[in-house]
Amino acid sequence: MIIVGELINASRKAVGQAIEAGDADAIKQLAIDQREAGADFIDVNAGVFVEKETEYLKWLVKLVQEATDAPCCIDSPNPAAIETALAVHKGTPVINSISLEKDRYEKLIPILKDSDLKVVALCMSDDGMPETADARVDIAERLVGKLLENGVKVENIHVDPLVQPLGTNDRYAVEFLEAVERIMDKFPGVHTLCGLSNVSFGLPERKLINQIFMAMAIARGLDGAIINPLDKRMMANIIVANALAGNDNFCADLLAAFRAKKFDL
Amino acid sequence: MIIVGELINASRKAVGQAIEAGDADAIKQLAIDQREAGADFIDVNAGVFVEKETEYLKWLVKLVQEATDAPCCIDSPNPAAIETALAVHKGTPVINSISLEKDRYEKLIPILKDSDLKVVALCMSDDGMPETADARVDIAERLVGKLLENGVKVENIHVDPLVQPLGTNDRYAVEFLEAVERIMDKFPGVHTLCGLSNVSFGLPERKLINQIFMAMAIARGLDGAIINPLDKRMMANIIVANALAGNDNFCADLLAAFRAKKFDL
Repeated sequence: MIIVGELINASRKAVGQAIEAGDADAIKQLAIDQREAGADFIDVNAGVFVEKETEYLKWLVKLVQEATDAPCCIDSPNPAAIETALAVHKGTPVINSISLEKDRYEKLIPILKDSDLKVVALCMSDDGMPETADARVDIAERLVGKLLENGVKVENIHVDPLVQPLGTNDRYAVEFLEAVERIMDKFPGVHTLCGLSNVSFGLPERKLINQIFMAMAIARGLDGAIINPLDKRMMANIIVANALAGNDNFCADLLAAFRAKKFDL
Repeated sequence: MIIVGELINASRKAVGQAIEAGDADAIKQLAIDQREAGADFIDVNAGVFVEKETEYLKWLVKLVQEATDAPCCIDSPNPAAIETALAVHKGTPVINSISLEKDRYEKLIPILKDSDLKVVALCMSDDGMPETADARVDIAERLVGKLLENGVKVENIHVDPLVQPLGTNDRYAVEFLEAVERIMDKFPGVHTLCGLSNVSFGLPERKLINQIFMAMAIARGLDGAIINPLDKRMMANIIVANALAGNDNFCADLLAAFRAKKFDL
């Protein structure tokens, strides 16, 4: 499983304030905590500061990489901000995210073309958000096809089939799950990834719903998640689900997590 | 989801003692508790009492149906015991279980032939326990085919693909999950069902592993489980997973469970 730690996002109040105050230590600690909890990439997002996004994003990338050895997930649709962040980034980041929306696609494809960058390919188009598995697979086919034509390697593509709230339509979760399986089948070597919390929007027991949904998505082939890695139960569930999905040789990660007391919730 | 409550099993020490002591109230309470917790069928098993199995099984069926309106899951490979239990059973029970093992198959098929009985079809043959999805699907195809030929309705067949321990082979869980999906696809209208606890045998954190595995199996199409319905977290997980799998119109069951405080764990 590829874990993207989601906490360094300026839309979270404490993080937004830390960024405005130039509180480097707070940002670094958040990077260290997420890395130690198992994040493979640290998401950085300064999108709420429209005017200063470029400056802040660059600063966040530098801080994360001073504090940890983790690559970043550069979370912006703004090509200028991404380019500036890339100029200071060491190693291979994830660009989060391209989609089939014409404007977003055309702005980002020059950055990705023939590069070794990893990219989140969000199943969204100018026709709006997909509701069915068919609609998701259709967008994924067109978007992955275009990325491949532009020299992006299949193993650098992380398709996000777009989670929609179960409370709005009782088919939304299962259509997402089916899309994961079909996308993983259709493009050998591709990855899938998603954020979760939207699935439980408007329902009670959101944490439980998110946790169970993650296990179900892993059962259908999902191999990445943008989550709060400090949520110990979520991380424990992912370790267990990953083993049950046949991705943990000799259950070595599960047993190591047990010895490291990661199941002491 | 079809929930079979597993607690009235003579191999559990307290139950075995209650049976020997003729403690009808203890058995009835166990039936009531499981029914109230959401069991659709109450499993009755007196297999440890080889000589007295027939007498005890009949007694258990009577007690369960005096105490509740639930049908039983008659858990025995012994045709004489099953016939005796059937004679006193009201409504339609599940027979647990037939398999492709020649001796077991031939003893049970006369009871099932052209009947309206429900039956657990266990993926086991004289070649032993299946290890791969292919082996499970192969047994399921032959066993379901024979049951259909004998006039058993597809919707009365509950295939148990046979859970094997993840700690023995790190592919066992995922092969089981794949088998569930393929069996549900191959025989429209058929059900799948399983016990769970075997998956975590020999590993730490067995409860967590069992809970996550259940959600993953539901994600692949499993629609029945033989479990302890008094395990509140397991039941909560099943309600949530069932909704996420698209089987809960308007999330009505999930919301009703919330109002009934079934998520207060």
